[in-house]
Amino acid sequence: MSKLPKNFTKYLSPKANRRHISPLRKLYAYTRNDPKLISLGGGFPNSDLFPFGKFSAHVVQPGTSFQMNKVALSEISIDRSKKEVSGIESLQDFLQYGGGAGAASLIKFFYQHMKDIHNPKYQDWGVISSVGSTDALNKVTELFLNDGDPILIDEWSYPTAIETFTSSGFQMVAVKMDSEGMTPSSLDEVCTNWNGSRPLRVVYMIPTGHNPAGCTMSLTRRHEIYKVCQKHDIIIIEDDPYYFLQFNDAPVVNPEQETEEYLKHLPGTEKLVPSILSIDTDGRVLRLDTFSKILAPNMRLGWITGQKDLLQKIENHVGTTTMHPCGFAQGIASVLLNDSWGPQGFIKHVLYLQEEYLSRRNIVMSAVNEHLGNMVSVTTPVGGMFLWLKVNLPPHNANKPGVMAEIFEEMIKNKVMLVPGWQFAPALDTSAVKDAPYFRAAFSYASKEQLTMAIERLSAVLERFGCKK
Amino acid sequence: MSKLPKNFTKYLSPKANRRHISPLRKLYAYTRNDPKLISLGGGFPNSDLFPFGKFSAHVVQPGTSFQMNKVALSEISIDRSKKEVSGIESLQDFLQYGGGAGAASLIKFFYQHMKDIHNPKYQDWGVISSVGSTDALNKVTELFLNDGDPILIDEWSYPTAIETFTSSGFQMVAVKMDSEGMTPSSLDEVCTNWNGSRPLRVVYMIPTGHNPAGCTMSLTRRHEIYKVCQKHDIIIIEDDPYYFLQFNDAPVVNPEQETEEYLKHLPGTEKLVPSILSIDTDGRVLRLDTFSKILAPNMRLGWITGQKDLLQKIENHVGTTTMHPCGFAQGIASVLLNDSWGPQGFIKHVLYLQEEYLSRRNIVMSAVNEHLGNMVSVTTPVGGMFLWLKVNLPPHNANKPGVMAEIFEEMIKNKVMLVPGWQFAPALDTSAVKDAPYFRAAFSYASKEQLTMAIERLSAVLERFGCKK
Repeated sequence: MSKLPKNFTKYLSPKANRRHISPLRKLYAYTRNDPKLISLGGGFPNSDLFPFGKFSAHVVQPGTSFQMNKVALSEISIDRSKKEVSGIESLQDFLQYGGGAGAASLIKFFYQHMKDIHNPKYQDWGVISSVGSTDALNKVTELFLNDGDPILIDEWSYPTAIETFTSSGFQMVAVKMDSEGMTPSSLDEVCTNWNGSRPLRVVYMIPTGHNPAGCTMSLTRRHEIYKVCQKHDIIIIEDDPYYFLQFNDAPVVNPEQETEEYLKHLPGTEKLVPSILSIDTDGRVLRLDTFSKILAPNMRLGWITGQKDLLQKIENHVGTTTMHPCGFAQGIASVLLNDSWGPQGFIKHVLYLQEEYLSRRNIVMSAVNEHLGNMVSVTTPVGGMFLWLKVNLPPHNANKPGVMAEIFEEMIKNKVMLVPGWQFAPALDTSAVKDAPYFRAAFSYASKEQLTMAIERLSAVLERFGCKK
Repeated sequence: MSKLPKNFTKYLSPKANRRHISPLRKLYAYTRNDPKLISLGGGFPNSDLFPFGKFSAHVVQPGTSFQMNKVALSEISIDRSKKEVSGIESLQDFLQYGGGAGAASLIKFFYQHMKDIHNPKYQDWGVISSVGSTDALNKVTELFLNDGDPILIDEWSYPTAIETFTSSGFQMVAVKMDSEGMTPSSLDEVCTNWNGSRPLRVVYMIPTGHNPAGCTMSLTRRHEIYKVCQKHDIIIIEDDPYYFLQFNDAPVVNPEQETEEYLKHLPGTEKLVPSILSIDTDGRVLRLDTFSKILAPNMRLGWITGQKDLLQKIENHVGTTTMHPCGFAQGIASVLLNDSWGPQGFIKHVLYLQEEYLSRRNIVMSAVNEHLGNMVSVTTPVGGMFLWLKVNLPPHNANKPGVMAEIFEEMIKNKVMLVPGWQFAPALDTSAVKDAPYFRAAFSYASKEQLTMAIERLSAVLERFGCKK
């Protein structure tokens, strides 16, 4: 029998403590308990007046995409009546005010999915839907942190997270990274030597396909990091949008070598590096998942997993801000994942995405090896969609102020753009890192032909700055 | 020529001042300016891998609803290619990360709609999409207010707004109301006599179909309130979800009297009471609109109108939280309003909603007149979906502690539920108002038959407490 989670309510921020369940919501219980009660309570518009009759989407078969010729499509739809077999809500339900964690059929899918894939190790864990991980990140940090509080973060991190923390007034405390991401020794050191006026409570991390550093923590590293967090009683925000886009031990090969045999390297859902949530015995992890990278970003649909007491506070916050995620998105996701594709189809889709992103990683890494060589240092990504290139400048340029801006300008002239490293520095004043010799390259969006061409162009630029293959 | 708005940036909160445009977003300009540039910049997933082919919705003809027999439906859809004629984005555009104020075609509609309906009186106003007015309210208050700051609010107000302000740590400063809502004299008095340690900066109001008080401010009242806000330099949050659900001077009649001639009382979009935004010459109004009450709540789609400098700060906030509203909702709304119904169809739809809610108002008010009489005092709503019933208790019950809770219990036993007035009090401690003799009744959701039955049941309950018709 798994144990109860640790109680972290003592760490809740004043703002989180001020959030409670609306008394109006409590009234709904009367309606639920007595079908004969006539309620003039809820200020709901009349569902019969919603002008929408049926909502539908064409979807590809799992394991295929629009990149292929003659892709077969099936139509999935939400009707005005509930799908009785699968228990999926009606269109009117999806489009009316909802409240709670999200549409019941979708929450049921999320819960079973988390159980199947991550199988949390403590009692009383749950899931709640979000309008995407960016908004979720605001909500989980606000649970514990006030203006002025410190937050632990990688020395390079996701710009939108940095902006979130900056605007929230959090003091970002950087932790050193290596080729697997945040190092346990640096995290321990920072926590042990901390002498700020407010305690360290929360660490933010992107364990898989790190943005921008492209690296993925091994299971051993995850255990080590977790232990350090236990030692200093730190809550972990596991932001993991690229979790399913892992490549396991597939080596970099040329396109013609991507045989069926080769693709067996891919993890599917069986050989994924286990999440930090999956090793969490204390309930100290709040994990952020999202469909942004595996279905589509602007569905604005994700989910948060963690201990129920903390999720209830998030639900209260959601109830006074975003409310439910969009009903169209919830409906389509629910029908797709419960009914049309089903959980097995979803896994097939994930495996297909792994193939596609692996193929792109192979193309860009082959080009890097061929055209850049020793001009850069890079860790081959085993997941995600980013390359983190450290530029090996010759001595006369390596310490020249403004050289990275010059390289960027030259890139633009040469019709290729990567993102300068300083944009990923968790600091209010980035002037100290303007010449950090890094660029981030995303290999997700440009076409496969463009990927190679971009690296060739970059090679010509770096050559002008004296870099040698 | 209209004048420039007043500059309110001096009132921005530290949090709002810390928000800026992401440097990553600035990079997009390079891509826009040079189509030959290969960008490995944006961390976008590949749009070709979105599994969705086309999404569509059946919609009723404007002026009809599913309440009618054999309603005619048409299909509206978003395809993978852009609709060149109407300039509506493709499915891939709607479902990819967007940024900015919202999908261009939808923002164009919002802008023209606001110009047609409200015609703001100053230069440099704009619109930005929101995920609904509840989230928008958080974002506009956060522009100006910090934890501990005061906010002006009606003596009875929308519970979710109250919860928002409570959790944000705002000190709610109540202003007296009469049958039109907030009174200018009370607002002036509160502002003039204010001696709190932090200045009064913002007033929150629901000018049309007030929740819970059901009242609507006349144009004269709006001008008076606006003048008081100018005098004390107060920023106005105009939360106006029921704006289109106005009934103008249509008297309460029986269903058979709702003739074509009678329905000419309805305002359509021509005779609506002008919004406070429409009389705003200073740019001190931030107006919240939403589709929640006129299309469907869980589309989570609304828009904010105000001066551009302030909207830019909101856009920065949106970029680190909710990002775009859901692409499915934006796409469907854009096709519906630009293309399928068009602006004229939208007006027809609004007029139909006015008829429907007027009819419900008539039913509930007829029942109130017949079955409650002098048991209650009530202002006949000229808009919205709420009745605010003041219970006229006999002296022996009027001052009895706990009497309103007793009435509520008795209602539940008698299978009718209204919301007790104390739930609408803008106070952390509501014990002082537990026996305020008010109930809110929503006439929007229950069926027409239930509306009459509910009032009959209420009459039986009030009779037991000595109320006399």
